[in-house]
Amino acid sequence: MDRLDRVAAWLKENNHSFAFIHSTPNVFYLSGFYTDPHERLLGMFVFPEKEPFLVCPGMEESQARDAGWKFEIIGYSDSDNPWELIQEAINKRGIKETSSVAIEKELLSYERAEQLMKLFPGLRFASVEDKLNQMRLIKDSKELEMMKEAAKLADFGVETGVKALYEGCTEMEVLAKIEYELKKKGVREMSFSTMVLFGEKAGQPHGNPGDRKLKRGDLVLFDLGVVLNGYTSDITRTFAYKEANNKQKEIYETVLKAQLASLEKCKEGTRLGDLDKTARDIISDGGYGDYFPHRIGHGIGIDVHEFPSMSQNNNGTLQKGMTFTIEPGIYVPEIGGVRIEDEIVITDSGYKTLTSYPKELQIIG
Amino acid sequence: MDRLDRVAAWLKENNHSFAFIHSTPNVFYLSGFYTDPHERLLGMFVFPEKEPFLVCPGMEESQARDAGWKFEIIGYSDSDNPWELIQEAINKRGIKETSSVAIEKELLSYERAEQLMKLFPGLRFASVEDKLNQMRLIKDSKELEMMKEAAKLADFGVETGVKALYEGCTEMEVLAKIEYELKKKGVREMSFSTMVLFGEKAGQPHGNPGDRKLKRGDLVLFDLGVVLNGYTSDITRTFAYKEANNKQKEIYETVLKAQLASLEKCKEGTRLGDLDKTARDIISDGGYGDYFPHRIGHGIGIDVHEFPSMSQNNNGTLQKGMTFTIEPGIYVPEIGGVRIEDEIVITDSGYKTLTSYPKELQIIG
Repeated sequence: MDRLDRVAAWLKENNHSFAFIHSTPNVFYLSGFYTDPHERLLGMFVFPEKEPFLVCPGMEESQARDAGWKFEIIGYSDSDNPWELIQEAINKRGIKETSSVAIEKELLSYERAEQLMKLFPGLRFASVEDKLNQMRLIKDSKELEMMKEAAKLADFGVETGVKALYEGCTEMEVLAKIEYELKKKGVREMSFSTMVLFGEKAGQPHGNPGDRKLKRGDLVLFDLGVVLNGYTSDITRTFAYKEANNKQKEIYETVLKAQLASLEKCKEGTRLGDLDKTARDIISDGGYGDYFPHRIGHGIGIDVHEFPSMSQNNNGTLQKGMTFTIEPGIYVPEIGGVRIEDEIVITDSGYKTLTSYPKELQIIG
Repeated sequence: MDRLDRVAAWLKENNHSFAFIHSTPNVFYLSGFYTDPHERLLGMFVFPEKEPFLVCPGMEESQARDAGWKFEIIGYSDSDNPWELIQEAINKRGIKETSSVAIEKELLSYERAEQLMKLFPGLRFASVEDKLNQMRLIKDSKELEMMKEAAKLADFGVETGVKALYEGCTEMEVLAKIEYELKKKGVREMSFSTMVLFGEKAGQPHGNPGDRKLKRGDLVLFDLGVVLNGYTSDITRTFAYKEANNKQKEIYETVLKAQLASLEKCKEGTRLGDLDKTARDIISDGGYGDYFPHRIGHGIGIDVHEFPSMSQNNNGTLQKGMTFTIEPGIYVPEIGGVRIEDEIVITDSGYKTLTSYPKELQIIG
């Protein structure tokens, strides 16, 4: 059953009148049409038993067709009121009253929800997000191919960063070089703001790259990823520049041990929260429990952070085809930080990593 | 009166119990704290007569302080429920019941609005966006300084792009070089996805850069901008590579004439919609009315597209300190397109452009 049919079947089963799905990632997932209309309205209306339609700025109609959308398209101009056109299209399908409409509650603005309430006074909203999250959770082989390609470019980004290091270079200089080489390979967007952090800057889990200059004995942290064909990647590697002291080595080995132990648990049936717990226990036993302030990872796919959240209290279980990151870290203010992150896919026999840059401690330069 | 005081005064005047302001740009505008918490909750609660408070992920508390936030901060961890902490903080201020809460209706998700409705059953939502848009509309001298700096880097981006052109180069290669040179200058984010379009690709108002190779006789369109210190820039320039035929020259001169005529109208008191009309009339008279499918421009500041929309039906009037783009374009499928865009600020004596790259037709190479 194709993806739209699955949504339609779910709507029928749950007695929803229709779903309004407007976010770029979910529209892409259901239609193959990837577009960011900024403040303009984009969305698909899916019905239990009627043909869906797509609403988009008129000038993007042909791109939607090219992407394979076979159903009605309502293209509007900047002087149209798209909500009037939507009302007509819904009426045309014989739907006059509705009690329950499924929306992306976490993403739809209150203003747009209000527009829907004006069209159908008295309606209640249900969330279509759980359903879409569950669908997107398990990647098919075509999606995994895209993700592998995107992950390879993330590996290449780290490799480029390592080559660009020299004593006295700045974080921004290295960041610029990484993105330059990736863009020359056709990457249009990074999946998030690239991180290159030196020395004590790497000790901030959300530090900002700047004009900090590289010095002997610095830890160097890269965290980056790309968007390719609508799918994202995400990798973190940490290196030592020219030398590493015993404290830095201890931190590195603790993080690596935690990451490898967490990976060992990656197979069908494992409780999700156990991945965080496994890594956290090792880091706590090493005496660094207070310096690992974030969850072990996050789902990844069309969004670089997507369902599920890989936190300790997640009672879900791992299933084949799930993709997520495993990224423990230790951040000691003034001294620096280490994070090691891979993208994982759960397979028949356990797991594979999509990212594959080596992760033993490397002393560079 | 400082910005928070103006919001508080407005709340009092309109009998709202409080405002919840959560978007990165508006939080930055009101507090100086610039952060993108992704899926995590960020927001400030502002009251008519009580002290405001800020809610943010615990690990960002110190950044909020560094940015100058002087009032209460509620930092939460991933295992906290921030809404409970919010309820406590509101109760602590003696507010038990509320009938009207001002939110960013266009930006707040329905899910978060629902959380507020749970805290205060029966509340109604008002929009704080009009007020904030009106405040942000008029830039102060400090904001204009930031915008000038960001605009200079946009000029530099075009200059870099022009220098990077050679016969057979691809769009992505030139795009990569532009962003590389900007990032080496410390730019962390482009204000939107950089456009470099060659030949017939430039004829798509929303084309995507790719591996199209540059040929003699191509039009070359650059549209780019940066984010610097929280403020954005935006420029478009179009060039001819090695030669231009009469049709291309005619299109270019028509766009330039339309842009200059629209700029001439830029002074206090002009009706906003007249800027679009002036340019559109010239383009229509030139026989290209069907090939100018978008509004003349958009407000610009913290957001690259912000209030106001510079469309023909906008009956607002120009005021000193307003900043916006003027960017007419003509796009002829198969042949190519021309767009010329500057950022404008309305001054005592008329206007100034913030972007300043030359705009007579240049034949490059």
